[in-house]
Amino acid sequence: MSRIEAVYRIRAPRAEIARVAHAIALEQSVEVPMEAVREASVAAEVVARVGAVTERASDLFDVHIGLAEVTAGGDVAQTINMLFGNSSLHAHVELVDATFPDALAARFGGPRHGVAGLRALLGVNGRPLTCAALKPQGLAGAQLAELCATFARGGIDVIKDDHGLADQSYSPFAERARLCQRAVERASRETGRRVLYAPSLVGAPKALVERAKIVREEGIGMVLLAPALIGMPVFHELVREHLDVPVLAHPAYAGATRVAPPLLLGKIFRMLGADAIIYPNYGGRFSYSEALCRDLADAMRGPLHGMPAALPVPAGGMTVERVPELTRFYGRDAMLLIGGSLLVADDLLQRAREFVTAVAAGEHHDD
Amino acid sequence: MSRIEAVYRIRAPRAEIARVAHAIALEQSVEVPMEAVREASVAAEVVARVGAVTERASDLFDVHIGLAEVTAGGDVAQTINMLFGNSSLHAHVELVDATFPDALAARFGGPRHGVAGLRALLGVNGRPLTCAALKPQGLAGAQLAELCATFARGGIDVIKDDHGLADQSYSPFAERARLCQRAVERASRETGRRVLYAPSLVGAPKALVERAKIVREEGIGMVLLAPALIGMPVFHELVREHLDVPVLAHPAYAGATRVAPPLLLGKIFRMLGADAIIYPNYGGRFSYSEALCRDLADAMRGPLHGMPAALPVPAGGMTVERVPELTRFYGRDAMLLIGGSLLVADDLLQRAREFVTAVAAGEHHDD
Repeated sequence: MSRIEAVYRIRAPRAEIARVAHAIALEQSVEVPMEAVREASVAAEVVARVGAVTERASDLFDVHIGLAEVTAGGDVAQTINMLFGNSSLHAHVELVDATFPDALAARFGGPRHGVAGLRALLGVNGRPLTCAALKPQGLAGAQLAELCATFARGGIDVIKDDHGLADQSYSPFAERARLCQRAVERASRETGRRVLYAPSLVGAPKALVERAKIVREEGIGMVLLAPALIGMPVFHELVREHLDVPVLAHPAYAGATRVAPPLLLGKIFRMLGADAIIYPNYGGRFSYSEALCRDLADAMRGPLHGMPAALPVPAGGMTVERVPELTRFYGRDAMLLIGGSLLVADDLLQRAREFVTAVAAGEHHDD
Repeated sequence: MSRIEAVYRIRAPRAEIARVAHAIALEQSVEVPMEAVREASVAAEVVARVGAVTERASDLFDVHIGLAEVTAGGDVAQTINMLFGNSSLHAHVELVDATFPDALAARFGGPRHGVAGLRALLGVNGRPLTCAALKPQGLAGAQLAELCATFARGGIDVIKDDHGLADQSYSPFAERARLCQRAVERASRETGRRVLYAPSLVGAPKALVERAKIVREEGIGMVLLAPALIGMPVFHELVREHLDVPVLAHPAYAGATRVAPPLLLGKIFRMLGADAIIYPNYGGRFSYSEALCRDLADAMRGPLHGMPAALPVPAGGMTVERVPELTRFYGRDAMLLIGGSLLVADDLLQRAREFVTAVAAGEHHDD
């Protein structure tokens, strides 16, 4: 019997933890009291099993629970349901990790390009990649395309839409995507450097499929998707069936405080096919710690069912001045995303060049 | 300029709250420092606006922020993005309420059947509805159908799949749905009472559309969907374009502690088209309080853009013994869902009848 090993962090008095752990095992599998499980095969093969219980602090325990792989039915939505469907509503329970059987991971598939694929597409080795964002929303497609051209001429590797850009009246998707893609192509011919433009796809499945078609028709080289926002099952199906290009995942609506970020943003987004994953960097305007960011980067780049590494993309409150520190911290296989702080510069082109130069000059301990 | 009025509950020292509120307004609209907003029209029409700030407790404030409707682009995913995309990652911020312009709410559409439609379909007035769940998962389709027949003969109004039933090897969707539907049809002919079977649809968009087709072909009368699990934009599109029958929403993976449950489970699920909405009842195995359950029921049944009321479906740790208390608490327009505690009874049919009788005998103050 193959099982998914989930780890739940549970707040409970020591005298209660065995009972609470057993209750979570029932909640996340058969969802009835054990007395209502009348079939021996269900008790043996479907009911989740409590494994190791370790005390992390006073009244705080890490409980390993083995969820039967068969309950996941090989499906993304159902896997998440079994991992944290009802227990996401339990205030005393946090999902902190999960280890998947190889067969289930293989159905997910992981990144199609990953770090190596992105480097090959951009022709960049031996330094972190650079990324800048097109914003503020409210600008017209032509204005965003102009910004795009400036960043591309400044030598940025990846230029992404703000995740707030969808299909609004002031910059409809089809027009914006076409204009920005033409802008990076022109800049690339001028500079001789490759650059990827990643438009943001936001919407319900039908709109997403239509936009993926535009991505293909316009020869766009990358896309930005927020799995928690559009739905993780949709994200996975879109990546597998409608997109060939690398996928940059955004944490919007991930509310990642109840599912541990290294699991949700690191492992799960990667397993579903993200090639590069944005998350809030430490010391920025989000409350992620240095240790958490280290764990996130490890989850994205470490061994995982033989899947390609995904590229960590720290973002949020980043500045050109912090580049030396960040290249030391993350090493070479990262993409530094500087958003608003590039955009406040008076000479945008010059500031983009400074960013690019700082990254090239960084110490890359893992070269 | 039409705006969505969002209310964020923010933990911050009093001396800091004005600055923090302004930062959230930027985060949830243009996502750049104000200095990077160079267009006057963007500053006037796109940047979110801080409204009333009220202190709820020491260092805890409710901050009203007006989000420009135009940034939502009339789209479900993008509306959620603007409400709580990045700020869901802020540990000090909770989204507690939102009020939508009528035009945007009209695009969402709300319940197609609602309380009145469900009552008409079932021919039940003057008492709460009853609901039971098919579980544990691991049983074969034929075993679940037998359980279904017993509940239907016992007089239950709505019989739903456990939300853990998807398309697993031990009870594939198509077979299970057909067998259960035939079972309720046979029981209905025997008893002369109407009864709705609601299978659980879990999966990525393509699978969901296929299963919705089966629902239609088999003449199935209702469906169970978990909007947070399959993705809210998918939920909305599925309801609008692929389903005619009433929709019962399940809170799986709603992790509803960071978005206030009355907003997410009450208002948003209802606006997207849920006709009846399951949530954890007070005094059960989840930590929802009596006051929170009152707020949830109010959000589902109260006035909302002229939309039909949705049916509150308290569940989780419910028992037949609690029925008098629950009918007093919720009144007539509710559906009581008893899951595991019905299933532990030795005589299931008898226990189902006791449930039905207790509901019929309840005091319904709002009759």
